[in-house]
Amino acid sequence: MAKITLRPDRYMYPRPTLLVGANVDGKANFLAVGGGGVAGADPPMLGFPIRHERYTLKGILHNMTFSVNTPSVDLVKETDYCGITSGAKVDKVKVCQFKVFYGNLKTAPMIEQCPLNLECRVVHALNVGKHFFIIGQVEGAYLSEDCITSGKPDVNKIKPLIFNLETNEYIAFGKVVAKAYSVGKELKARE
Amino acid sequence: MAKITLRPDRYMYPRPTLLVGANVDGKANFLAVGGGGVAGADPPMLGFPIRHERYTLKGILHNMTFSVNTPSVDLVKETDYCGITSGAKVDKVKVCQFKVFYGNLKTAPMIEQCPLNLECRVVHALNVGKHFFIIGQVEGAYLSEDCITSGKPDVNKIKPLIFNLETNEYIAFGKVVAKAYSVGKELKARE
Repeated sequence: MAKITLRPDRYMYPRPTLLVGANVDGKANFLAVGGGGVAGADPPMLGFPIRHERYTLKGILHNMTFSVNTPSVDLVKETDYCGITSGAKVDKVKVCQFKVFYGNLKTAPMIEQCPLNLECRVVHALNVGKHFFIIGQVEGAYLSEDCITSGKPDVNKIKPLIFNLETNEYIAFGKVVAKAYSVGKELKARE
Repeated sequence: MAKITLRPDRYMYPRPTLLVGANVDGKANFLAVGGGGVAGADPPMLGFPIRHERYTLKGILHNMTFSVNTPSVDLVKETDYCGITSGAKVDKVKVCQFKVFYGNLKTAPMIEQCPLNLECRVVHALNVGKHFFIIGQVEGAYLSEDCITSGKPDVNKIKPLIFNLETNEYIAFGKVVAKAYSVGKELKARE
């Protein structure tokens, strides 16, 4: 297959759609982030990019804590709203009617309506051009009780959103393609 | 909705399924990575976690370059194989019948059969416990010519894989839920 050369960019599929929370000047605020991912496993770490001028960043760096809330497809309107407005101008919690709760870290606000909530402590804040890349260790994990299967989060119940930067669309998860750590064994015969 | 407290872990949905490439001892090798994401936008940066003992890491840190190849659902078998075997023991390129090409960086091997290929230069290598978190700047981007729409990568043609750590499954993309930077505007009436 012939290849086309594109202008170098951060083409990453899938990208998550997350609501990152922080207390800014003592008040809960949430920013929609369409990027980031797992940064480590033991201890568990997540990372995400955030532009220098973001209102939420002020609170993250002040408290050195943040939350990562996974919205379901049912919250797509609220999620998008948190991406197109600034907490410096509007009270997103009030407009979105979010119920906010706190965990062990005390300063990482979480959204009850989001099926999955993680509270994190900042371990790295890297300046990577127009963004900071924030890496946090997960110190608390909360799941809505109707989203669990066999003791684990169930994506069929959480119904997370994929963010597609190229088309500016939120996309749902699709069908299972294959079993991991399994389907590739067939190729061992070729070794 | 009542919440269940889980043991803190890196619960992130969606997680990508990527084939990270490096030259190790002068030979192309590819590792399946079910994590990582966008780390910055300007300049474009990607990051991913990799265990200290991985064979591929040796090549990444030696050359300070790597590639990120996005496999389609049609390559799920090869992708899984690259996750369950080590390049120290088998020649993954040969077993998977990958056609390898190189771009501007010269030392970041890419897989022609993967619809999307990015070549990156390492800008940060962070020790985050049992993993390194590698952040690279995207310096080259290549797309199979049948996967482009309006000058951009098209996920409906690329057909990337989501990795679900909880069920050990590869999942396809689903349907579009809503338009980003748009659907949330409806809530502005509540401000």
